[in-house]
This record gives sequence, structure tokens and C-alpha cells, in this order.
Amino acid sequence: MERLVKADRACAVAAAAAHDLNDELTVILSSVTSSILALEPGHPARPLLLDIRNAAQRCAWKTCGLLNYSARRGVQPVAATLESLLDG
Amino acid sequence: MERLVKADRACAVAAAAAHDLNDELTVILSSVTSSILALEPGHPARPLLLDIRNAAQRCAWKTCGLLNYSARRGVQPVAATLESLLDG
Repeated sequence: MERLVKADRACAVAAAAAHDLNDELTVILSSVTSSILALEPGHPARPLLLDIRNAAQRCAWKTCGLLNYSARRGVQPVAATLESLLDG
Repeated sequence: MERLVKADRACAVAAAAAHDLNDELTVILSSVTSSILALEPGHPARPLLLDIRNAAQRCAWKTCGLLNYSARRGVQPVAATLESLLDG
């Protein structure tokens, strides 16, 4: 029984982490899109920014998969910080 | 027992996702650092790139926490793709 409680907590940790990561990825994707628009055509940083955008989009896809997985397991949301769950 | 197997799988999914995210975050952090160096001083995209770097660092910290949590639960690594675990 104790192991089940721990397992459910692990799923809650994964879901909380996925939500937090999603928020940060929104910042990254929004900022990188604005950065690309702010660069002059042919600027040497442009390919790097495209790499960032592609990597952030892959992150968002994986985070979405993690969220969907948690949702399928029927995790019930509770008010908690990621830090409190990781320390628990 | 079946629920325990599913719980262990959930932890494996979280660990696999954290590893994959870590790889992508390495790309983002490396590219954003190079981009900042490639920009002229006072370029309007600079504050946006600093936002990206800060958000990616927060992501890396959270992902690291997720990895440490999985490790504390004693998840044993097995060869698998994230996609196969999410579909399972």
C-alpha cells in the first residue's frame, strides 16, 4: 500500500514537472520567435535560433506526451509545489 | 500487482522523458549562449535571448530534479524509446 502511495506521488511529480516545463517552454518559444523576427536577414545567429526553436518544439511535444500519460492514469490534481513533492 | 507494474512504468516514462528533455535543453542552452555572443552590443534581440537562457536553465533544474527523484525510487534503466512507453 505504501508503495502505491509512493507510485501515485511519482506520477504527481511527473505531472507537476510537465506543467512547470510547459510554462517555461512557452516563454522559450515565444521569445525565440520574436528574436528571429528581430534579426536582420542573413544574421549569423539565425541558424542557432532556428535550432533553439526546433529543440523547444521537440521538448514541448515530449512534455505534452508526459501530460497525456499522467492524465490517462487518472491523476487527480492537488495544490502543491514541485519542490515540496521532490523533497517528500 | 498490475497497478504496481503500471506505477513502475509511469516512473520509467518520467525518467525517459527527463533524459530526452535534458538532451534538448543542452542544445537550447548551447545555441542560446552562442547566439548571445554573436549579437552586436545593444541588439534588440539580446533581452529576449537572456529570457530564453534563464527559462532553459529553470527547465534544466526541474528536469534534473525529476531525474534525481526517479533515481531515488530505484528505477532500473532498460532499453526503450519514449514513444514506445507512452503508447504502452
